[in-house]
Amino acid sequence: MISETYKSMLSGKSVIRELSEYATARGKEIGYDNVFDYSLGNPSVAVPKAYNDKLIELITGGDPMLVHGYSPSLGIPQVREKIAASLNARFGMAYSGEDIFMTSGAAGALAHAFRLVTAPGDEILTFAPFFPEYNPYVNLSGAKLRVVPASFADFQINFEAFEQMLTQSVHAVLVNTPCNPSGVAFTAETLKRLAEILTAKEKELGHEIWLISDEPYREIVFAGADAPYVSKFYPRTISCYSFSKSLSLPGDRIGYVAVNPASGVSKMLATMCGQISRGIGHNCPTALMQLAVADCCGMTADLSVYETNMNLLFDCLTELGFEIVRPSGTFYMFPKALEADSIAFCKKALKYDLILVPGDSFGAPGYFRIAYCVDTEKVRRSLDAFRRFVRAEY
Amino acid sequence: MISETYKSMLSGKSVIRELSEYATARGKEIGYDNVFDYSLGNPSVAVPKAYNDKLIELITGGDPMLVHGYSPSLGIPQVREKIAASLNARFGMAYSGEDIFMTSGAAGALAHAFRLVTAPGDEILTFAPFFPEYNPYVNLSGAKLRVVPASFADFQINFEAFEQMLTQSVHAVLVNTPCNPSGVAFTAETLKRLAEILTAKEKELGHEIWLISDEPYREIVFAGADAPYVSKFYPRTISCYSFSKSLSLPGDRIGYVAVNPASGVSKMLATMCGQISRGIGHNCPTALMQLAVADCCGMTADLSVYETNMNLLFDCLTELGFEIVRPSGTFYMFPKALEADSIAFCKKALKYDLILVPGDSFGAPGYFRIAYCVDTEKVRRSLDAFRRFVRAEY
Repeated sequence: MISETYKSMLSGKSVIRELSEYATARGKEIGYDNVFDYSLGNPSVAVPKAYNDKLIELITGGDPMLVHGYSPSLGIPQVREKIAASLNARFGMAYSGEDIFMTSGAAGALAHAFRLVTAPGDEILTFAPFFPEYNPYVNLSGAKLRVVPASFADFQINFEAFEQMLTQSVHAVLVNTPCNPSGVAFTAETLKRLAEILTAKEKELGHEIWLISDEPYREIVFAGADAPYVSKFYPRTISCYSFSKSLSLPGDRIGYVAVNPASGVSKMLATMCGQISRGIGHNCPTALMQLAVADCCGMTADLSVYETNMNLLFDCLTELGFEIVRPSGTFYMFPKALEADSIAFCKKALKYDLILVPGDSFGAPGYFRIAYCVDTEKVRRSLDAFRRFVRAEY
Repeated sequence: MISETYKSMLSGKSVIRELSEYATARGKEIGYDNVFDYSLGNPSVAVPKAYNDKLIELITGGDPMLVHGYSPSLGIPQVREKIAASLNARFGMAYSGEDIFMTSGAAGALAHAFRLVTAPGDEILTFAPFFPEYNPYVNLSGAKLRVVPASFADFQINFEAFEQMLTQSVHAVLVNTPCNPSGVAFTAETLKRLAEILTAKEKELGHEIWLISDEPYREIVFAGADAPYVSKFYPRTISCYSFSKSLSLPGDRIGYVAVNPASGVSKMLATMCGQISRGIGHNCPTALMQLAVADCCGMTADLSVYETNMNLLFDCLTELGFEIVRPSGTFYMFPKALEADSIAFCKKALKYDLILVPGDSFGAPGYFRIAYCVDTEKVRRSLDAFRRFVRAEY
């Protein structure tokens, strides 16, 4: 019979998608250039030419059995080795290729990570504000997502609430730094304290607690930000990466799981990912994309536009009286709305053709998200809309 | 804590992989040209030039936001429409684009299909001989796979055993035609009777029974074979397709789910696939590959080598006294071994550098699989090894 679980999900509405659809419809009325669509986190910069060149080189000159043939279930060995070497050089880690498992983006990586270290019914904690897709990602894996309330002053960790929620049924903690939607990265101090608490709690609870680190924005870090590599702080860390944002190619569906070798079980966990894949139909990401990112894993697209946009918006909005924790990276910021009801706030903004997303679904009502992965020229024009909006409505 | 489910799977050994590893090692000793490796089902023919040309055209001249940007979660609309049109033209169906859901190959398609129409604990029936990966694919989805004994005379369906096993807990039936490992396709007569039984049983049991049709070999059909399109026979059919074999690109991870619109719920089921994806981390297949197959879905690689190989092997082996049901397609055949213990039989074959796979894991002990996706020249040379093997050992 047709699954009630998935059928019932069809009636759920995504606020972000509704806003995006509104923006598209409004664009047809007044021209999309005049809609300040800050709803969607779609990378807006070009793929590096070197990546496209590599694709063409592989298609025209590569060994067809390597380019179009089955990839080993854990990923192509030389690809895994190149990624390990890149991580080691950049972050002072000690990965071998066997600690890496190639995935279809970060969503694929997370689907494996959750199943690696939880059994059905186990809890995974994450921190508000958080990416709302974590709800279906975790809950449909059989584990249960619980959200620690935000530390609103700095979007670091509310350690008091965290320690209270770190109970016997918690087997993993999920972090996302720099964070969608706040743009804020966990500092070295935050990660050190997080690791200390996890280590102490493991002893107290008598079981391991794994740290799952979702890092699609790792390469988008702004000047002066303290955004260290999570896995350095805690041995039982599973890093989940996607090249979607760093190389600006979310449609290419390519990323990986990297298990910290200091855990002592990293090769086993990477191999277990191959078993998980059989159950969730993942198998491997496209061989062509594996081979191309292996040669591009030290480079990024030109990500500077995001910092330019952030500075323009941050300066204008703080001047207008918004409270904002300055983003460390990503292409998001998460200001406090000018009234308690952020849904009402975002509805009023629509009158000025500003498409903003209420913070409610991110676990932080009263706030809103700006996804500033848009042309800088449009960001500049939007500033006047923000000014008119605030002056007229508040 | 580390998942016991997946950890325990690490100790399981794949007979096929072990044989393939043996073949590689033996190849280092005597030259791989001298090892008659019939263990692996890897397509051996070239990707059509038109497909590679299309990839390059898209990379160099396509809209970068379409080629490298996020694909809608159900697949790119024009791709879904082109696939529907191709199926309609070739098989007289009435699909719309909205009945199609793009997946990462057939494994991805099956992972969605199982979850669409079963709840945890429900049973899915399939028919021996069967692809052994169906065990983890189904069982890790929460459903339970049960295998109907083979109809050894023709590798059609043992209807008596099937009807007995079609009990209250069965919610889906999984077919694979033409079949890995037998190479045999279900005839129109078989499919008609299957549909009649399902229709009658639905009334008797008071619930729907869905037919899940795994069709990666659909395009590899030999002269004179009766290998009709499954979905034409039964309205509640979910077709799971992969381009891996037809276009010879298993590494590209591209396929789809097509739900028969005669079911009356096809658009809903295709949309539900997008929800299932969120839980299993699938999201969409690579946008580039979606766009490329959309323009190549009416063509195939040059698949004629498989029929040439089949004829050579079939004629030689029947002459040597093997009982074989003549394959309708694929690049497999599944002869009866010359002794009851097919593992012992295949071990003896190794002395002649013939790498054959025992039928035990396919649910048919006493038989063995030949995967003849190898160069015809090598097939020819292997015939003498078969002759020496049979004369010396039996």
